[in-house]
Formats: sequence, C-alpha cells, structure tokens
Amino acid sequence: MVGLENELFTNTTEIRVRYADTDMMNFVWHGKYLEYFEVARTELLRATGISYAEVEKNGYQLPLIEAGIKYKIPAIYDDILEIEAKIKELHSPKVHIEYKVIRKATKELVSEGFTTHLFIRNDTKKAVRPPKIYVDALSKYFTK
Amino acid sequence: MVGLENELFTNTTEIRVRYADTDMMNFVWHGKYLEYFEVARTELLRATGISYAEVEKNGYQLPLIEAGIKYKIPAIYDDILEIEAKIKELHSPKVHIEYKVIRKATKELVSEGFTTHLFIRNDTKKAVRPPKIYVDALSKYFTK
Amino acid sequence: MVGLENELFTNTTEIRVRYADTDMMNFVWHGKYLEYFEVARTELLRATGISYAEVEKNGYQLPLIEAGIKYKIPAIYDDILEIEAKIKELHSPKVHIEYKVIRKATKELVSEGFTTHLFIRNDTKKAVRPPKIYVDALSKYFTK
Amino acid sequence: MVGLENELFTNTTEIRVRYADTDMMNFVWHGKYLEYFEVARTELLRATGISYAEVEKNGYQLPLIEAGIKYKIPAIYDDILEIEAKIKELHSPKVHIEYKVIRKATKELVSEGFTTHLFIRNDTKKAVRPPKIYVDALSKYFTK
Repeated sequence: MVGLENELFTNTTEIRVRYADTDMMNFVWHGKYLEYFEVARTELLRATGISYAEVEKNGYQLPLIEAGIKYKIPAIYDDILEIEAKIKELHSPKVHIEYKVIRKATKELVSEGFTTHLFIRNDTKKAVRPPKIYVDALSKYFTK
Repeated sequence: MVGLENELFTNTTEIRVRYADTDMMNFVWHGKYLEYFEVARTELLRATGISYAEVEKNGYQLPLIEAGIKYKIPAIYDDILEIEAKIKELHSPKVHIEYKVIRKATKELVSEGFTTHLFIRNDTKKAVRPPKIYVDALSKYFTK
Repeated sequence: MVGLENELFTNTTEIRVRYADTDMMNFVWHGKYLEYFEVARTELLRATGISYAEVEKNGYQLPLIEAGIKYKIPAIYDDILEIEAKIKELHSPKVHIEYKVIRKATKELVSEGFTTHLFIRNDTKKAVRPPKIYVDALSKYFTK
Repeated sequence: MVGLENELFTNTTEIRVRYADTDMMNFVWHGKYLEYFEVARTELLRATGISYAEVEKNGYQLPLIEAGIKYKIPAIYDDILEIEAKIKELHSPKVHIEYKVIRKATKELVSEGFTTHLFIRNDTKKAVRPPKIYVDALSKYFTK
C-alpha cells in the first residue's frame, strides 16, 4: 500500500508475529519493534523502486543515529501487524522515517516510533550525501 | 560497580558482543542495544538486593512504555561494553532508567538511551503502584 | 502450497531474509533457520485448519525435544526463501517435522533439517498424547 | 575452566539467561542455544590463546555446516547456565565441537548438542585447511 499524505511518502507492510518474537510476559519482546521498523523501511524503499540491497551494492550503508518508540498496547503471538512507514525531507543528509504499528484485526495502535539515519560510504564509513540512486527513486514522489 | 551520583542510583554491567549480535554492516545490530539495556536494568535491580525474577514471582511485571536511543559510534564483535544504568524518581508510578554504553577498551561512548516502564499486575495487566519489595530495596539508596 | 507426498503432509511458506537476520559473515546467522522452521511449522498447522495459538489456548504446548540442521549454501539479505515443512507419524506422541529451505530465485537448497516435539500440558508441563483438536485437523490428510 | 579429558580440549563458559531469551512458553526459546553454543565456542578458542576475531582478521571464517541439539529440561529467565564446549580432531579440515548446557544451581543437564564447521577464506568463501594461527594454538593441547 503506497500513498502520499501531507507530502510524506507512505508505505504499509504486514508482519505476522512469530513465536520467537514473544517473551515470558506473553507479549512481543519490546526490542522486536525495531526489527519490524527495519522490515517496513526496506519495503518502503522497495515501493519507490529501489532495494536497500541495491543501495549497499552501490557502496552505501544507512546506519541509525537515533531511534525512539512508544508502546501503547502489547502485540501477541500470531497477531498480524500493519507497519506503516513514512518518509519526508528528501534532500537532507539525514533520513528520518516515522512508523506506526497497527493490530490489523482491531485497528488498534500498538506502538509508534521513528528512526533517523545517515548515509555512509561502505568503505570509509564516513557520512555522505544521499546517493543518486536514492534521490532519483524518491524524488518522483515529492513535489519540490 | 554500584554508586550514587546526583541522587541517581547507578550500576555498571559488562557485556561482551556476541557474533550473533552483529549484522552484515559489521556492527552490532541496532536493536541489540535494547537487549543490552535490559541486562543492565536486571543487574541494576540485583545490585539493590532484589531480582527482577523475584518481582515477577510476586505478581508484578514491568513492561516498557517508551524507549529512546542515540547511536554515537558502532560497537563490533568481541568488544567488551560497559552498560551504565541509572535510576531516579523512586516514588513515581513510572520507572525511568537512563543508560550509557561505553567501549571498555577505549572508553568511547557507543550509545546512550533511556527506557520508561510501568508496573502492572501479572494477572490483570493493569498499571499499579511500585510493589513494596521494589520500593524497600531502592529506598535505602535515596535520601528523601 | 499444500500437498500430500508419500503420505507426508507438506506445506511451503515464503520468508524474506531481514537485515537483522544477517551477521558479519554477510550470511543469515545460522540460528535463524530454527526461527524459519518455526514459522513454517506454524503455517503447516494453519494449512490443516488449526492454529498453534489455538493449540496453546486449549492448554497444550509443543516444545522441542530435538533439532538438527545441515547448512548447504548461505542465504543472504533480501533473499526470498521457500521453507517446506513435512509432517508424518500422526498418532505418535512425538511430532516429527522435516524442513527444506530453498532459495526461491535459483531453486538451490540452502539448508535442511528437522525438529521433534512432544505435546505437554500448559499447566503441568507433563507430556501427553496429541490433543483431539490436532489429531482431527491432521487425520483428514492421512489415510490409515 | 580449561581441561583435557579423553584427549578432548574442554572449556566451560557461564551465561545468565536474559529476559529477551525467553518466549511465551516461559522457557528459553529453543534457537537461543545455538547462540549459547557460539559464545562457548568463542571462549573455547580464547582459552587456547587465540580469539575468533583474530581468525577473521587473518582472512578466515568458520561457518557451520551442521548443528544438532537435544533438549532435556527447559532453562528459564535468570538461570545461570554452564556451557561446556569440547573440541577434538585437530588436523581435520572440519572442526567438530560438542556442547553440554548445565543449570548451575542444580547441575541438571539442560541440553546437549554439536556444531560442525569448515574453515573458508573470507574473500573466496572457499573451504581451506585450518589456518596456522589455529593449529598452533590448539596443537599444544593435543598429544599426537
């Protein structure tokens, strides 16, 4: 599901909670949401026409510099979650993505959060401007 | 290592980075830090004389309601990390803990973050005031 | 994809490799395959008409007593894997499931393995015969 | 703890079970034992005087080609586990390691298993004979 909302590029990915994702509290272990965000981010990029695997093959990496998450209600084993990812600020050296995790069956908000990233060169591990492959793929979704 | 600093109760735990903690970027996968925080939090409680396992056996759980993390420099396989955890605000229904991750060999700051928790009853999953076992254990470290 | 092959009930599940699944060797971390097996096992049961979540709600659990895996070629980030799961021996107290992991793009065999399980009661943690909900769901796929 | 037993080189590593290691069955999630084996293997090598990080820096990797595990009794949160790792067959191109997981408090056997590995070159990903750094480190523990 791809859309433009308030000039943010948005994509939603479905993830079913695995048994291994749970902990003895019977909920999804809290750190797992960062993995769900990662999957949603990968699919957000894929929806624009590039794959993150391609980005790395071109010599770039996109490590996190910050992440935050608010837990609203727990998700449990076998839930289907909709992970909505939004991106804005195309031309910034930083990539900022926001996420909402929705329990599909009830449309309840499970958690929400963000990640901030910096493009670096694979070899030097130095920060660089977003690569052309990335800017070209996303620019068609943004009006100047 | 236990200490009181600015009326915060502080404890430091060492963790060696496992191979399974790394990802193909050659760094510790970013979500792992929430697991390191969790270990540091467990050891912080243990240092006060209670174990979190004991808290759960008494019918309480301490799920997260928020977490945040800033990534400064990457940690890599086999690094020994010092995870410093600090707690304050003893009598609040919310438990707020702050963390610093230090690479032991160089004393560089790897990352820092926080987690905020709420005590709930195991059975009802409803929020409750901190249990006596917890307040008693920590109160000896705080001046009113 | 559901089928009967040599009196084995077979089901195939697709999993895309996540970034978090990789390690610094650039491959899927070897322990992840047990998680992939778990997902395939869950979907195998679902294909018969029961969910494992339902099995647990009925008071049963299905812990592992043995697992084995052979690694043929590595899988990498963003690969789509087909996890084929096969079950036989319906009336045994032990549940034995075999798996094959295939890289979808090339049809290469990535790994293969098995897991053996025992039904236990949730409350007593004692081994019991397979519950009716399970036997009924599977028996329609087996000729006596 | 280092020892020679029946011409096997043996080393024991302690691991405390983390909350994140558990699943909703209240036990350690079964795939975690492969991670515990990995830590024990790393410490086994370190006890001989080499670090696996060093092996990789020398251009070698040691991926798994097979693993097996038998689950005896469950381990739970906060348990201290002793992971005993044994190595033999020094001059084989394959490295075969056996593991026992013991619950420290009761000395009960939690699980046992093995992993088999092949040395490969980092760059070519081709199988090679064990590197000199490895053979030299281990040979002092073996009588011909």
